[in-house]
Amino acid sequence: MRLRAIVAIINPVNKADKLETMRHSASHVMAGAVLSLFPDARFGIGPAIEDGFYYDFDLPRSLTPEDLPVIEERMREIIKADLPFRHRELPRDAARKLFAAQPFKLELLDEIADDKAGVYEQGDFVDLCRGPHVASTGEIGAFKLTGIAGAYWRGDEHNAMLQRIYGVAFKSQPELEEHLARLEEAKKRDHRKLGRELEIYMFDDEVGPGLPLWLPRGGAIIEEIEKLAKEMEFKYGYVRVRTPHITKEDLFKRSGHLPYYADSMYPPMELEGVKYYVKPMNCPMHHKIFSSRSRSYRDLPVRIAEYGECYRYEKSGELFGLMRVRSMQMNDAHIYCSEDQFEQEFASVVFLYLEYFKIFNITEYYMRLSTHHPSGLGKKYVGNGAMWLKTEDMVRQAMKKNNITYDEVPDEAAFYGPKIDVQVKSAIGREFTLATNQVDFSQSESFDLKFINREGKEERPLIIHRAPLSTHERLIGFLLEHYGGAFPTWLAPVQVRLVPVADRHIGHARGLEAELKGRGIRAEVDDRSERMNLKIRQAQMDKVPYMLVIGDKEAADNSVSVRRRSGEQVPPQPFAAFLASLSEEIAAKA
Amino acid sequence: MRLRAIVAIINPVNKADKLETMRHSASHVMAGAVLSLFPDARFGIGPAIEDGFYYDFDLPRSLTPEDLPVIEERMREIIKADLPFRHRELPRDAARKLFAAQPFKLELLDEIADDKAGVYEQGDFVDLCRGPHVASTGEIGAFKLTGIAGAYWRGDEHNAMLQRIYGVAFKSQPELEEHLARLEEAKKRDHRKLGRELEIYMFDDEVGPGLPLWLPRGGAIIEEIEKLAKEMEFKYGYVRVRTPHITKEDLFKRSGHLPYYADSMYPPMELEGVKYYVKPMNCPMHHKIFSSRSRSYRDLPVRIAEYGECYRYEKSGELFGLMRVRSMQMNDAHIYCSEDQFEQEFASVVFLYLEYFKIFNITEYYMRLSTHHPSGLGKKYVGNGAMWLKTEDMVRQAMKKNNITYDEVPDEAAFYGPKIDVQVKSAIGREFTLATNQVDFSQSESFDLKFINREGKEERPLIIHRAPLSTHERLIGFLLEHYGGAFPTWLAPVQVRLVPVADRHIGHARGLEAELKGRGIRAEVDDRSERMNLKIRQAQMDKVPYMLVIGDKEAADNSVSVRRRSGEQVPPQPFAAFLASLSEEIAAKA
Repeated sequence: MRLRAIVAIINPVNKADKLETMRHSASHVMAGAVLSLFPDARFGIGPAIEDGFYYDFDLPRSLTPEDLPVIEERMREIIKADLPFRHRELPRDAARKLFAAQPFKLELLDEIADDKAGVYEQGDFVDLCRGPHVASTGEIGAFKLTGIAGAYWRGDEHNAMLQRIYGVAFKSQPELEEHLARLEEAKKRDHRKLGRELEIYMFDDEVGPGLPLWLPRGGAIIEEIEKLAKEMEFKYGYVRVRTPHITKEDLFKRSGHLPYYADSMYPPMELEGVKYYVKPMNCPMHHKIFSSRSRSYRDLPVRIAEYGECYRYEKSGELFGLMRVRSMQMNDAHIYCSEDQFEQEFASVVFLYLEYFKIFNITEYYMRLSTHHPSGLGKKYVGNGAMWLKTEDMVRQAMKKNNITYDEVPDEAAFYGPKIDVQVKSAIGREFTLATNQVDFSQSESFDLKFINREGKEERPLIIHRAPLSTHERLIGFLLEHYGGAFPTWLAPVQVRLVPVADRHIGHARGLEAELKGRGIRAEVDDRSERMNLKIRQAQMDKVPYMLVIGDKEAADNSVSVRRRSGEQVPPQPFAAFLASLSEEIAAKA
Repeated sequence: MRLRAIVAIINPVNKADKLETMRHSASHVMAGAVLSLFPDARFGIGPAIEDGFYYDFDLPRSLTPEDLPVIEERMREIIKADLPFRHRELPRDAARKLFAAQPFKLELLDEIADDKAGVYEQGDFVDLCRGPHVASTGEIGAFKLTGIAGAYWRGDEHNAMLQRIYGVAFKSQPELEEHLARLEEAKKRDHRKLGRELEIYMFDDEVGPGLPLWLPRGGAIIEEIEKLAKEMEFKYGYVRVRTPHITKEDLFKRSGHLPYYADSMYPPMELEGVKYYVKPMNCPMHHKIFSSRSRSYRDLPVRIAEYGECYRYEKSGELFGLMRVRSMQMNDAHIYCSEDQFEQEFASVVFLYLEYFKIFNITEYYMRLSTHHPSGLGKKYVGNGAMWLKTEDMVRQAMKKNNITYDEVPDEAAFYGPKIDVQVKSAIGREFTLATNQVDFSQSESFDLKFINREGKEERPLIIHRAPLSTHERLIGFLLEHYGGAFPTWLAPVQVRLVPVADRHIGHARGLEAELKGRGIRAEVDDRSERMNLKIRQAQMDKVPYMLVIGDKEAADNSVSVRRRSGEQVPPQPFAAFLASLSEEIAAKA
């Protein structure tokens, strides 16, 4: 099973969008401002993009951040002048003359199919452009230039390197400010930043790109998530297996992954004349376990679960924090069932998702049913049209009967069957496919999976591939942003930090630490010789849910002064009372 | 860290052993018996081996098991006749004439260095042989022929295939019978047999040799063992990490494993011009995590634990069930400490072992301290003589102060420091290095590991490598033989099997199953339409600790009739009482 790539764009640019037109016009205004500052500037292209615009320039010197306010000021003057955007159609030759000093424009002109070229003009600046634009520069709303970057002409590293200026633009100043605040928040909540600050995970050059090492605090989160998954899966009737991470190529030949999927796999290791691969997915191993003994209809459904670690080759340039990695620990399972069990099994998986979402307080999600398209049968999709229609309808029935709403997207199914993807949005607006629930009526055939039905005849089981908790990498990356690093107590890497006021209180603090740990609570003593306020600030930065300040009074009557990471101070209370309420909070995953 | 290979031979053959001489003579007697049955037989060699002997023959027809009693009968006649073993020295030429019809003997004669050849003769049979032998055939004790196998002449597959007859021989009939009984028991307890029968693990040709797939029942055992390890390690102050299974070669270059250890590693995968390896051990990854932040003496000891999966290349011919595999899940951890913390940390690890041994009821074990030898400094051992003496003495002190007895074995240390190996003996007499506790004063240097000591100066930590619970593979292989498959309840893959007397009791049984599972107990209903006795026999064969028979009476008053796998029947009792005592037994790991 393969999780879909991250869906990065939340508001896809709509070609007919008014806002987009305004942003495109803003890029022309910026180009006009640059022209007035650098009369010899050569111009590349300047499109609208999500939330804003950019323009690429070839300039006599490198820009610095200090240039941006100056350019912004010129832009404001142009906007204030409310210059009209004038559109003209020119014969190609006339256009060539007009852009004689602009080599990039000439190159674009050469590629225009018909003999006419459209240009837009505002004030001194004229550009080769299809439009549309706003009527005049006064219609441009609130904007801000946000950065400078290098960019090859037409994205090709063999071409000249240009300077790109990015900007954002919105209809109104409040909208712009809201956007900038969100960006600021996103920066703070970025899982890569939090992951480093909170010591959740690391990368190492000698280990390799895309291969995260989970530090002890990340390890604690993983352990809690696995514990939750194992308890839930036990409750839902799964059994657990363990399978190797390397396998002979034979297995992935049978599954059909080689050679079609080889590009996303690590290259083989050749041993004793045999090619071995690190596994990109667990499915074939589970199929082997299903078929390791004869199965009767009474044994079904068989639900085989494993936190299986998979390895996939993603290009270096596509790696992205914990979201796009090369090694991933997947909350994987395969359910083998008969057709008449399918509806209940499929719905049961969806309910499992919903139960998890409640625990993690995930409220922004939607389900997407991806179906086949007849034109792809035998190519993109297993060539059994009847089975497609049948299983798609089974999924629809399962969803409808259980009142689960979903969107339907044609022509996005997996190779082997229809699927439900669960999309969630993180606190900073990134959307992910967090979980997936896929039907498979094809691999049963490849692996000769069968069971003896009520009539005593052999029958192929249907397979459901599912991963409600995604991979540890993607889930924890998501949760870091979702919680802004402030994990709920049950999930927090350090649940209690004990802060002795002076060195003489360390002994008592150690005693409490031992009591807490005896209850399985992750507690630690900050025994540094630092001021108490500094220790408390540190605990807040580490986003530890509870700080217990231990001074003379607390040591004397075995009480604790409790502070929450929010800064809130709880009145002093007996240690036993704190321990009881904390244990309850953790058990309830509150 | 590397676990030592299995120590397979418990009673190594002692060259001067009287028993061995007798077994060697028995092989000549067997050859004499074969000669009398097959006058054209050609003779290979016939040495004594552990517990017995064999002889290789070239015969006009294939032997069958029915031949063995006939040969035994002839042997008994020769023994009864009490023929003397006569020794002669012949000139080589005379020997060549004597063995003119024996091509294998002629080949051996050609290789004798001096001009004389020794022969031994009893009755009609004469053999080229250095001896020694017993005085006469009457001195041969109790024996039994145990099997026939094919064997290439001199073990070379390019040579002729001979027929080998195996026998065992002991001084007395009771000793022989005890040995045969032990063999019988060993066969029953062999982890490979039990592993298959109890559905613990499997191998698959398409996955590859030495790469076990853990079936659900094996998965349940693994989960319990990991849970135990994680609880114990939390109690002992370890933190948990997760590290990738693949890494750039740089990491193992730095650690010094490449190229010295490359033969035991899987070959590399080449990606984007970089070589990646599946890791043969976790150490370097943990070192990276230790050095990912600055450490003060206050942070030490740092105890980093991981159930890390490692991959090592063992030759196909050396693979052996779960005992010698290519993929292994190791109960690994590394402790980074200062010199003055060493003694306590090292002893604490040994105490952890002893705590585990109590839980698993392992009573036959001994500790072995392996030290360096000065002649190997700079070659087999890191070239720092003073550190060797110092750390070896630290280990001795740690052991002695804590009254832990051990044997000392010189010249068997790890490359990087002295170590304690823990040897255990399984119920069928196989001895294993189950656990190991190794000192390392070398890798701190290679990975530039350091901490700031009390004086504010940089210092290198000492490292302890430890794996008290070995690998899942070796530990579970051992435990299968240790318990003969009858795992204690807390560890049993299925803890309770519910046996409905008739189909109408299935509903009630399912209700009890749900209650048991609600308490985390692994219960299942045997709902097949089979006779009750057959279901009970099946549960006994599956070595399920408790069977609950559910009939009309039990369904009516919510009681249970309990049977143990031993066959013992417990008087009927309320279900609630059974549930309470079972929960207690599991919690106590009784």
